[in-house]
Amino acid sequence: MSETQILFELFIMFAAAKIAGEIFERLKQPPVIGELIIGMIIGAHALGLLAAESPVQEAVSTIGVVVLLFAVGLETKVSELARVGRTATLVGISGIVLPFALGYLYFILINYNQIESLFIGTALVATSVGITARVLADMGLLQKNYSMVILGAAVVDDILAMMILAIVGGLARDTLSILSLILVIIEALAFVGFLVFIMPDLVKKHASILGYLHISYAPFIVALTICLGLSALAGYIGLAAIIGSFLAGMVFAETADRFELQEKTKPLTEFLVPFFFVVMGNRLEIESFFNLNILKVSLIVTLLAILGKIIGCSLSSYKMGFISSLAIGIGMIPRGEVGLIVAALGLKLSVIDKNIYSIVIIMVVLTTLIAPALLKMILSKRVEPNQI
Amino acid sequence: MSETQILFELFIMFAAAKIAGEIFERLKQPPVIGELIIGMIIGAHALGLLAAESPVQEAVSTIGVVVLLFAVGLETKVSELARVGRTATLVGISGIVLPFALGYLYFILINYNQIESLFIGTALVATSVGITARVLADMGLLQKNYSMVILGAAVVDDILAMMILAIVGGLARDTLSILSLILVIIEALAFVGFLVFIMPDLVKKHASILGYLHISYAPFIVALTICLGLSALAGYIGLAAIIGSFLAGMVFAETADRFELQEKTKPLTEFLVPFFFVVMGNRLEIESFFNLNILKVSLIVTLLAILGKIIGCSLSSYKMGFISSLAIGIGMIPRGEVGLIVAALGLKLSVIDKNIYSIVIIMVVLTTLIAPALLKMILSKRVEPNQI
Repeated sequence: MSETQILFELFIMFAAAKIAGEIFERLKQPPVIGELIIGMIIGAHALGLLAAESPVQEAVSTIGVVVLLFAVGLETKVSELARVGRTATLVGISGIVLPFALGYLYFILINYNQIESLFIGTALVATSVGITARVLADMGLLQKNYSMVILGAAVVDDILAMMILAIVGGLARDTLSILSLILVIIEALAFVGFLVFIMPDLVKKHASILGYLHISYAPFIVALTICLGLSALAGYIGLAAIIGSFLAGMVFAETADRFELQEKTKPLTEFLVPFFFVVMGNRLEIESFFNLNILKVSLIVTLLAILGKIIGCSLSSYKMGFISSLAIGIGMIPRGEVGLIVAALGLKLSVIDKNIYSIVIIMVVLTTLIAPALLKMILSKRVEPNQI
Repeated sequence: MSETQILFELFIMFAAAKIAGEIFERLKQPPVIGELIIGMIIGAHALGLLAAESPVQEAVSTIGVVVLLFAVGLETKVSELARVGRTATLVGISGIVLPFALGYLYFILINYNQIESLFIGTALVATSVGITARVLADMGLLQKNYSMVILGAAVVDDILAMMILAIVGGLARDTLSILSLILVIIEALAFVGFLVFIMPDLVKKHASILGYLHISYAPFIVALTICLGLSALAGYIGLAAIIGSFLAGMVFAETADRFELQEKTKPLTEFLVPFFFVVMGNRLEIESFFNLNILKVSLIVTLLAILGKIIGCSLSSYKMGFISSLAIGIGMIPRGEVGLIVAALGLKLSVIDKNIYSIVIIMVVLTTLIAPALLKMILSKRVEPNQI
């Protein structure tokens, strides 16, 4: 592949992603959905401006998703969990158990195999809190109690989702003997546990060492190096690479402010992450949307995704009152990038096919589009009587 | 190539580059030289930690060099040329003509062909002012007259070097008829001229349009999009892609402060550029350094590179006094990344072989290491008498 071809492919993907992002911003919808859809439109299965796959697509989408999860990790402080406390932890856990169970059981019921059903369950687990946080911020409600619970629960969600993904991803690679099952679970728990509960403190205590380095942006560079290293390591021990990058971000979350890691990571995510979503969109077969059976299953999965979170999260926070607990349930609905990542991983491991991939993508798009509308509806209803 | 392999390759390259950078910083040497050397050491021709080539290496080194030249372009303000005025322009031009002529004639003399000789001439042309600027800054001399002339002349140098590279690169692709020669020159001049003399003003006048965009970091994103687009376009019309990225940076140089483009580009260059230098080092055959004939030619080329700049630049600034004009000549010696880029382009176009590639790299490394030492010697001599 010539340099010119590489650059043309990058240009097409980047320009399309940003134009779609701009359009979705103006429609007050999440730009990431626009990037995904434009990837499908310019992709190999529709307009054909992109090849179905290419080494460049693989390289930049890999770097993009690693940087994305590193940035998500940077915002995930273990210490904040302690602060929002028990309710958030309870909401996070119950918001995971119910959707996972519903998705898994439904897929078993309609005769998919164990691994496929586990993957659907996993895709229903994670909350993409960015979208909810933005709606709440736009409405000036970010300091409310229910907002704090949502943000805290999303952190619990992310950590647990990574653990579940580590286990399910590990299972998908191995044969399903009891011994290998136990080994995979121990391995995943040890890797995630060490990085979640031990490393952040170690880094926080010894961060001043980074001041002795002479290279520019030393803490940022060290964090990125560890991110690439942990991603590769996670891959080697049979986990998803992104688990490594997420945990690398989390390890530095407590020291992120001190070293301005978020400000420095932002240009990287703005430049590199769109490639991931466009490539994700490129893998979507547009015919799936005209296949009635796939559409039917997608809508049921979406419904389970919505009900699972609303029931799970609202019930476990019912003490906060009807509107608040409902807001929490709705706020946890969007699946966003984590759902996409689970789908991409399943496709890469060849444990789900293009049809299940499409089902997950449709579920992600619908939950992500519906949540802000529902949230605005219920919260502005609540605000209006107070204002009169 | 699996995701894990991609990430492992990225990790090895990045970690090695940054460790080498740190070591060179501590030795008070340019980190870029360290990145280049470590690439050779861990590369396919020595330790073998890297494959000789891979799609990932190609993708990230292409992105790296595009981002690097975009960043260099961002610092190249056409308006500053007017300020430092005639001397800088004269120094820039004479510092290009003499090294180009010396390199070209020497290669013709020792029986290389026209295109190879033109490439060596071109590799001797550009000044990498970053290294000199850093030495001057460290010594607190950046506001002196000669420093201003060096910085201004380097801008002239960069623009002219890009023009020469555009023409020589174009010649290398085409058959050498008079008509195609004229067409290539017109095309290169039109492309570079339009972007240098017309676009920056246009962008400056209409930059407020960017304020209407809703996506985050809009001006940065638009500049990057244009960078990728112009790079691909430059490739299509037969110029080097990096000419497009350099000019894209230059187009936004006048508005860079307003939109904080440099601050936003810095994390990108810190993350992506090292891959380019490591891959460059990986292409070096370590045997070249033990080949007496190559070493002999390399040393002569290095000598011509040094004499060409000292004589050319010092003579054209002799009115400023002996020490100042000598400082200017020495300050223009380092060839740095632009020399490497010319070598990489020649290799890619298959117009120079691995031996000439090694010769250029040795010249770049030596000029870049020698200049700071010479500069410190001559300028501290000058400073001491004043202090007594």
